[in-house]
Amino acid sequence: MRGKIALEEAWNIPNAALLGGFEPTSLAPKGVIGGDLGANLLDIHGTRLQQMDENGIDLMVLSLVSAGPQGIADKDAAEKLARIANDALSSEIMKNPKRFAGLISLSMHNPLQAAAELRRCWKDLKGFVGVILNDFQSSGPDGNTMLFYDDPCYDTFWKTAEELCAPVYIHPRSATPEIMSKMWAGREHLAYSALGYANRVNMHLLGIITAGVLDRFPGLKLVVGHMGEHIPFDLYRIDHKLNRARFPHMKMRKDRLVRDYFGTNVFITTSGHFSTPALLCAVQEVGVESVMFSVDYPFESVPNAAVWWDEFVSKSVGERDFLKMGRGNALAVFDRLASEPHGLEVMTPTQCGIGGLKHNEGGVEYGLYNESWDVRLART
Amino acid sequence: MRGKIALEEAWNIPNAALLGGFEPTSLAPKGVIGGDLGANLLDIHGTRLQQMDENGIDLMVLSLVSAGPQGIADKDAAEKLARIANDALSSEIMKNPKRFAGLISLSMHNPLQAAAELRRCWKDLKGFVGVILNDFQSSGPDGNTMLFYDDPCYDTFWKTAEELCAPVYIHPRSATPEIMSKMWAGREHLAYSALGYANRVNMHLLGIITAGVLDRFPGLKLVVGHMGEHIPFDLYRIDHKLNRARFPHMKMRKDRLVRDYFGTNVFITTSGHFSTPALLCAVQEVGVESVMFSVDYPFESVPNAAVWWDEFVSKSVGERDFLKMGRGNALAVFDRLASEPHGLEVMTPTQCGIGGLKHNEGGVEYGLYNESWDVRLART
Amino acid sequence: MRGKIALEEAWNIPNAALLGGFEPTSLAPKGVIGGDLGANLLDIHGTRLQQMDENGIDLMVLSLVSAGPQGIADKDAAEKLARIANDALSSEIMKNPKRFAGLISLSMHNPLQAAAELRRCWKDLKGFVGVILNDFQSSGPDGNTMLFYDDPCYDTFWKTAEELCAPVYIHPRSATPEIMSKMWAGREHLAYSALGYANRVNMHLLGIITAGVLDRFPGLKLVVGHMGEHIPFDLYRIDHKLNRARFPHMKMRKDRLVRDYFGTNVFITTSGHFSTPALLCAVQEVGVESVMFSVDYPFESVPNAAVWWDEFVSKSVGERDFLKMGRGNALAVFDRLASEPHGLEVMTPTQCGIGGLKHNEGGVEYGLYNESWDVRLART
Amino acid sequence: MRGKIALEEAWNIPNAALLGGFEPTSLAPKGVIGGDLGANLLDIHGTRLQQMDENGIDLMVLSLVSAGPQGIADKDAAEKLARIANDALSSEIMKNPKRFAGLISLSMHNPLQAAAELRRCWKDLKGFVGVILNDFQSSGPDGNTMLFYDDPCYDTFWKTAEELCAPVYIHPRSATPEIMSKMWAGREHLAYSALGYANRVNMHLLGIITAGVLDRFPGLKLVVGHMGEHIPFDLYRIDHKLNRARFPHMKMRKDRLVRDYFGTNVFITTSGHFSTPALLCAVQEVGVESVMFSVDYPFESVPNAAVWWDEFVSKSVGERDFLKMGRGNALAVFDRLASEPHGLEVMTPTQCGIGGLKHNEGGVEYGLYNESWDVRLART
Repeated sequence: MRGKIALEEAWNIPNAALLGGFEPTSLAPKGVIGGDLGANLLDIHGTRLQQMDENGIDLMVLSLVSAGPQGIADKDAAEKLARIANDALSSEIMKNPKRFAGLISLSMHNPLQAAAELRRCWKDLKGFVGVILNDFQSSGPDGNTMLFYDDPCYDTFWKTAEELCAPVYIHPRSATPEIMSKMWAGREHLAYSALGYANRVNMHLLGIITAGVLDRFPGLKLVVGHMGEHIPFDLYRIDHKLNRARFPHMKMRKDRLVRDYFGTNVFITTSGHFSTPALLCAVQEVGVESVMFSVDYPFESVPNAAVWWDEFVSKSVGERDFLKMGRGNALAVFDRLASEPHGLEVMTPTQCGIGGLKHNEGGVEYGLYNESWDVRLART
Repeated sequence: MRGKIALEEAWNIPNAALLGGFEPTSLAPKGVIGGDLGANLLDIHGTRLQQMDENGIDLMVLSLVSAGPQGIADKDAAEKLARIANDALSSEIMKNPKRFAGLISLSMHNPLQAAAELRRCWKDLKGFVGVILNDFQSSGPDGNTMLFYDDPCYDTFWKTAEELCAPVYIHPRSATPEIMSKMWAGREHLAYSALGYANRVNMHLLGIITAGVLDRFPGLKLVVGHMGEHIPFDLYRIDHKLNRARFPHMKMRKDRLVRDYFGTNVFITTSGHFSTPALLCAVQEVGVESVMFSVDYPFESVPNAAVWWDEFVSKSVGERDFLKMGRGNALAVFDRLASEPHGLEVMTPTQCGIGGLKHNEGGVEYGLYNESWDVRLART
Repeated sequence: MRGKIALEEAWNIPNAALLGGFEPTSLAPKGVIGGDLGANLLDIHGTRLQQMDENGIDLMVLSLVSAGPQGIADKDAAEKLARIANDALSSEIMKNPKRFAGLISLSMHNPLQAAAELRRCWKDLKGFVGVILNDFQSSGPDGNTMLFYDDPCYDTFWKTAEELCAPVYIHPRSATPEIMSKMWAGREHLAYSALGYANRVNMHLLGIITAGVLDRFPGLKLVVGHMGEHIPFDLYRIDHKLNRARFPHMKMRKDRLVRDYFGTNVFITTSGHFSTPALLCAVQEVGVESVMFSVDYPFESVPNAAVWWDEFVSKSVGERDFLKMGRGNALAVFDRLASEPHGLEVMTPTQCGIGGLKHNEGGVEYGLYNESWDVRLART
Repeated sequence: MRGKIALEEAWNIPNAALLGGFEPTSLAPKGVIGGDLGANLLDIHGTRLQQMDENGIDLMVLSLVSAGPQGIADKDAAEKLARIANDALSSEIMKNPKRFAGLISLSMHNPLQAAAELRRCWKDLKGFVGVILNDFQSSGPDGNTMLFYDDPCYDTFWKTAEELCAPVYIHPRSATPEIMSKMWAGREHLAYSALGYANRVNMHLLGIITAGVLDRFPGLKLVVGHMGEHIPFDLYRIDHKLNRARFPHMKMRKDRLVRDYFGTNVFITTSGHFSTPALLCAVQEVGVESVMFSVDYPFESVPNAAVWWDEFVSKSVGERDFLKMGRGNALAVFDRLASEPHGLEVMTPTQCGIGGLKHNEGGVEYGLYNESWDVRLART
């Protein structure tokens, strides 16, 4: 599929570690994750763009790699990292705004400051189409205090995001040292993207929703990746168990289900979770218009994500639903993508190469799964 | 779900048999199909409207019961039946146009006459939102000749339908006496709605598509009922086997699949086929925007169709997809429904009663499937 | 997946046309369908076996290409073709019975003779594991008479098949010249595998079931290909519309649905219909144990079928269900496969290469859909 | 469906609080969850049995309500509670062993003692068919230490469970006070069954699997409820992210995926999660033989669970798959159920009331979803 838009795509500033940001070697030595993780995070206009070209990705929305400012317990340092990263990302995007856009990084130590930095980036910088928050904000002298944005003090931030129509991407992050040692010691392999990321960020997202943030700011849009961080699969149980008699102080509207917010206020992406049964389950639970393609580059392989989408998902959903999830929904949710400097347009199935008789046109019955009639050669 | 629109709903004119139309007792004695079939076909504003009220159906699009003019081998008699039926249906609809609309019946003996009658009804009568054709037109002295609308002589008709933006519903009908005796003798129970209807009308629909009618008239919209008359399930095989080298004379665009026409030119309804796995398969093959709710009253029970939709389908598709298939898509395909005298509006999930915490609000965890916590009482 | 068993795989005898059998050039010139159709039908131990090796097919159950004896209106000629074909096929199979088995061809002009020939092949010849019937038997002076096996006179045949525990594969065939000219003229491209085959053979299968054949012979097993010839998708409607009050003479048990016969008496294969949504719909309607892999070689490409199964279906069904549908169910239904001279055994997922960490074992996160992390190279 | 077996069904001993066990009023006042939670937990042979009769549940496997011994940080007290509960449960079950069986409660402070108590209950008491462990064992002076069973010291316990062929049900429990205050403060409504239960127990289960416990004890069977505690939906991502190069110390077999253990070593139940899309997703990911019906009584309504299963799931899966998930798989996994004193037998679809033409037999077309043709009355 041509024209895909990818929404959860990581980038790093040079010398990130000096600023308290993400140091790739802290995660894994070179070669352990997808080639050279450190180099791939720094690169925008080289390998990354080439892979986008080779895999039908029209535009990537970039964001500073997690945990970003959320990982910095020192308020001033967190704010400084956000500001520097935002300036740098805007500058990079404007070198090629038809192919890249960005999410604003924010320190969440101080909601007022967060709102101010959001406003600065939205008004004064170019190329931003939303915000990224990497789960809770580390705080406290030892970094073990967690600030969550369902606290009423963050309403001032949410109000600003709603006012500016800036969608907020809620991205996972690592646990605090204390939680890490108490819960995950001996099973660190599960603590990150395999399980722990989702187990933490799904609580935060549901905390925000059930705290009534979306009721107080009904124009707000929240986006989560990884096929919804377990939530679509469990929506029945989540709504069923939020017993209003048992939990009378839960602030969410009494006449609503969590389910009801999807498609208007809450959206998911496929980043890093390329399972067709999971995608179909998510669609059944939250609807076509709530689901958007993404990769999670460079933690994920662009060709792996794109082959899944182009070759596999294309054969399991209707053509127009496929087009929406691959491109159309992203334009609706991140609506600045349709304006300058990006100027992305709605595309038809034909423009995106969806449908049509592609292989051996006018020839023998074509092999939808294998290029050759006789020899085992899967399609690319 | 409130606000449902139902599209394949049969009605009969009084004294139909005198005009060569459908005589219910020819099909089954009273009591054999859903109460009093003859009376139910004649009724609009009584039992039918009451059942619509009780089951959340905002509007029914009515059409003369099959085979209508298609069953009359005599040209003049067929044209007369169509004209009388159209006048009568328009008159009935205009007694309550907020709740009813109609499909135009046409004799298809003469494409020019069909186009003229279509134009007359569209321009001079009120309440029509599309056309119904009941499969092939019976013709010839013994009624055994079948006229199919993939013949180029019908282009004049298709051109008119496209010009007027009148969607054409392709509905099944019985076999000719000759085919009935040669193929279905001894297994008449299969010859009608259980199997034969679909087996014939799917050929006709695919004949029209593969003859290039939709390429010559790209604004044309075709609708079929009964979850697509087997076609969605078999789309892979159909497209795969339409080998252009083997069938070089097939007129459909060489660069297209049958699949590609769904959602813009071809649509299906759920009339008379209330299987959730079939619905989900259809959605996976043709997309959410190609599927629309319908009942097939009075051959089907309104409560049975509505309970399926409201209670079962609602728990297997996303809320917004459910809303589209129950109402929104019908407004997009039969777009006259949104204008006077019908004036139907787009509705939100809340307006339609979709989603929300309905049962025991603020009380204990609700039973989504059973009204009572303790006693087996399914929901209604 | 290693160890796959394929059940609907065509073969032809040399000089078939002289015996009234299938002449490939009558269908399509060389090159139009999958390379050299004529040569591929004649071949067993060459290209066919090589492709089986390359694509993980352990055994193919071969059958004389349709219409075989069913296409011969002359009784003696039909019986002769069956006899010659059976002798020849047994002989070929016994050259490599670990990799091939066969279905018995039968003339169905005379049920007694059919039963006798079945008994002869089952007892005196080796390598047969079931029977193939290609829809109706052509009969009459002009070949326009159709004999259907729901006629009570065929009970003697069904009784024999039940007694011998010989599963009967009901395969489609072309229409009679008369039906061809009356219904399909001008749309011949739809008359064969794209639509007409299924539209005819589904009537015949349902005719047999609803005539009570499976009630009188409850040990009988029927198998149909092409994902069930539209029936799984329409099972709700079929059962719903077989109104016992309207059709009091229908002989099937009054307390049963057509649906109930699947998994014990009726089975389907994937031959020639490689759609994952259709497969999933079929599984939802008829259950895992009713579904079996097949190709339809040489009308279908072995690599295309096998890539679909191995790469696509494997990612949409559970491992053990996948194993059953690819191998286990075939051993249960065609139980002679587990005896000499074939001696096939039940295999584990590991033996079949299902599951396991295959790619870059111990290395970086593997690409399930793309061999390379960086370059677009789909898996083979 | 008659003959259902339910596997995760809670019971409480009288005066539980005195022994450090579960005190229902600590969770919610009377009336807040399903009538009288405290009374329902104590009851076996009254209301519970009556609801089983009314809802087609042949047998319930009972277990001491969570957290049981796992919630008691004091070793002696935990062991005492387990012993008393096991004696009492065995005694209750033996009053009606055709309808009830039990899971053994164990203190997990000392693996040797746990193994010994397991052995005692398995050999000396009657009515037990498996073990229940409620997530981690509370320990330490303040109850904030968590003992997890992926620690090698527990191998002696796992070895005993394997030797005895005793399946182990891993059930969720509440967080420690410390974790509760650090992570869930202000969002307690999410801390229990809505989210927190699954978020903790899925880590524990995956910890056990990835620690190689199932490799060292390949005969061991683990069962988790709530549709798999998010794991089936995320299996792709879990396996994909367990990067062996990044986590070289992970002990699970290098050639296996977590996915591969389902159906032989790992099983899920539907307890408390009655979503058909989630069930279908789970089946697609882990296969029919890995999924078993359960209720989670009295935290869930028996009629609500049973109506979902009998009326909704029955229309979304094949009859024989439905039978397996409702009964057959439970007999295979908890194989003591098939022996005395329970003596449960395999049942056919007909014996379970699955399939068949139930409504208005021989009458008009039946309404599968609505009892009446005319009036909205859903089926019960």
